Amino acid sequence: MNNFTFENPTKLIFGKGTIAQLATEIEKERRILICFGGGSAKRNGVYQQVKEALKNHRTWEFWGIEPNPDYDTAMKAVKLARENQIDFLLAVGGGSVIDAVKFIAHAIPYEGDPWELIVDNTLVRRSTPLATVLTLPATGSEMNHRGVLSRRRTLEKVSFITPYSFPRFSILDPEVTYSLPTKQLANGVVDAFMHTMEQYMTYPDHNLLMDRWAEGLLMSLIEIGPQVLLQPHDYDTMANFMLCASMALNGFTGMGVPQDWATHRIGYELTILFGLDHAQTLAVVYPALLRVLKQHKRDKLAQYAERVWGIQFGSTDEKADAAIEKTEAFFQQMGLHTRMSQYGIPAEAVDTIYNRIQARGVSYGENLLVTPQVAREIYQNAL
Amino acid sequence: MNNFTFENPTKLIFGKGTIAQLATEIEKERRILICFGGGSAKRNGVYQQVKEALKNHRTWEFWGIEPNPDYDTAMKAVKLARENQIDFLLAVGGGSVIDAVKFIAHAIPYEGDPWELIVDNTLVRRSTPLATVLTLPATGSEMNHRGVLSRRRTLEKVSFITPYSFPRFSILDPEVTYSLPTKQLANGVVDAFMHTMEQYMTYPDHNLLMDRWAEGLLMSLIEIGPQVLLQPHDYDTMANFMLCASMALNGFTGMGVPQDWATHRIGYELTILFGLDHAQTLAVVYPALLRVLKQHKRDKLAQYAERVWGIQFGSTDEKADAAIEKTEAFFQQMGLHTRMSQYGIPAEAVDTIYNRIQARGVSYGENLLVTPQVAREIYQNAL
Repeated sequence: MNNFTFENPTKLIFGKGTIAQLATEIEKERRILICFGGGSAKRNGVYQQVKEALKNHRTWEFWGIEPNPDYDTAMKAVKLARENQIDFLLAVGGGSVIDAVKFIAHAIPYEGDPWELIVDNTLVRRSTPLATVLTLPATGSEMNHRGVLSRRRTLEKVSFITPYSFPRFSILDPEVTYSLPTKQLANGVVDAFMHTMEQYMTYPDHNLLMDRWAEGLLMSLIEIGPQVLLQPHDYDTMANFMLCASMALNGFTGMGVPQDWATHRIGYELTILFGLDHAQTLAVVYPALLRVLKQHKRDKLAQYAERVWGIQFGSTDEKADAAIEKTEAFFQQMGLHTRMSQYGIPAEAVDTIYNRIQARGVSYGENLLVTPQVAREIYQNAL
Repeated sequence: MNNFTFENPTKLIFGKGTIAQLATEIEKERRILICFGGGSAKRNGVYQQVKEALKNHRTWEFWGIEPNPDYDTAMKAVKLARENQIDFLLAVGGGSVIDAVKFIAHAIPYEGDPWELIVDNTLVRRSTPLATVLTLPATGSEMNHRGVLSRRRTLEKVSFITPYSFPRFSILDPEVTYSLPTKQLANGVVDAFMHTMEQYMTYPDHNLLMDRWAEGLLMSLIEIGPQVLLQPHDYDTMANFMLCASMALNGFTGMGVPQDWATHRIGYELTILFGLDHAQTLAVVYPALLRVLKQHKRDKLAQYAERVWGIQFGSTDEKADAAIEKTEAFFQQMGLHTRMSQYGIPAEAVDTIYNRIQARGVSYGENLLVTPQVAREIYQNAL
């Protein structure tokens, strides 16, 4: 087992009716900037609940954080926050709003060009306290120290990690998810599934518990995924989904294990170049990555086949093949495409993406298996 | 799923050679009281590593915290700490040393009679920062807000819970466990196993992930338990054991689920009256509790039989019976007795214990199933 440090100070407040606890969780003297996405918070009643809970606090509002949040949008919120001496940030939304708020929190007190914080995360040495009210289970951002920001001007999408990004608390009320569109629910299930896979699907490393916990997450998501689409107004169904999504990327299954993350890193290209949702990129890239790297990941694929999919017969190779097929079929069952061509992306995209990755000159994945050349092969396979 | 709040701010520093990180994890200006048990820390080299790491800090030492730590012992450390303006506590040891240090931390700044803090945990409103170097995987105290204290003078053993009990950080180096006696290793495995069972073995409650994670812990402990006894100098074996023990009682499998804890609460009697180790009490009481409450716990017992023990055939009743047998056999495999008579405890003890529990007038377990009368039945069954 590899040495590791684990820390996750975020307080989780989970269950129906818990948004009201904002009233006591945030100190009365705070000057709070509440950040929202495109307006769904008003339609599903979350806005009203938040405002009611904070009616005795001083609050400002910032609206319009888009999916794959943009640096320029975030900087508008930074300006508003600085003008009003904001000292607490509340993100009300899904992963995009939360990720943007993490960056806003760090940028507010930073005296240099805030983009520097993205390029070198260690420059984040103080920040603004932040909390979240989660409305879309998917990214796990509500309980981790990660964020992803895009800069459309320069065709960039980059992730940042700093301990200052942990929310002080996050409120998860499964009832607020009832009005989510099917597509967002499906994306959320696939996103949580992939977060688990990225920390699990490498090679056997004799970390018994982390393997079991990852497998437990995968089995739960496979069981709950179809139900989420069928009965999105069932409390227990949505509570299980919401809990799984938060637990899939909060470090709980990542202690001391080798990790992959190549699919995330090379998948960003499909968002930035072709506008695919994050989960759509994962569902397209991952089956292809597994096919291309099958020999490297074979033993772990067989373990996954046995324990998660209940495949008891066949050779290691056959189990690995079956596991890849089951994974792709699960994404399809959730309504996502698993081929680039299904999104109308032309074959020439393979070279476009290859050239961009090649220019960066970095490799991804466990043991840095995914060189630019291997990434090209994966995209070719995903056409 | 029940509403819940989850929070665990303890930082885990895990792996070989990590004791040296004490040098940077504790601020230079701190006045540190290092608390130890009976002297094993000097024999296994942990003492030397701790002192070397803290050679540029101001440190005091307190030795002699016993298993099932006693209030009077802890109060001697409180006196020493107050006399020397101690503002940081470092526990070096297993659960007993850590539990005592938690109490010492709270007692130092408390102006009333410190026993009041045990009787009413909400009186703990400030405390002394504490950290741990774990030498014995078992109780999970290194990563939770729980503690247990005994007062031999008055034949009391009581648990206390307060958020102030979370260590700031805990250092877990599997190599320090190599010299532990077999009995302590076996006790540790059973203790971690039972912590998981107390949060799991109630009734089906449709919390998919928490069930899977508890089952993952149980499967890992069943796999690793015998190896721990056979090859206690194997790094990966001990690392897996150490990680499981910490994860078994840090809240990670307890989110929104009904819990039991009756075995712990009524088992305390066997320690306080007959001096049994904590794990020995669990191994004696639990099989009897499962037999007595089989009808109430039947459906969850069958799930446990299927998923953890791989028992696929038979009726629900038969699976439940098999699960109880497997559990008792596992405790025996770890070298623990599962009957009171094997410890020479006479049949009259049943009434003695019953009278003590009856006098308290409280019931334990999910749905408060374990009334004093049921506790009597369990002890009768455990003879």
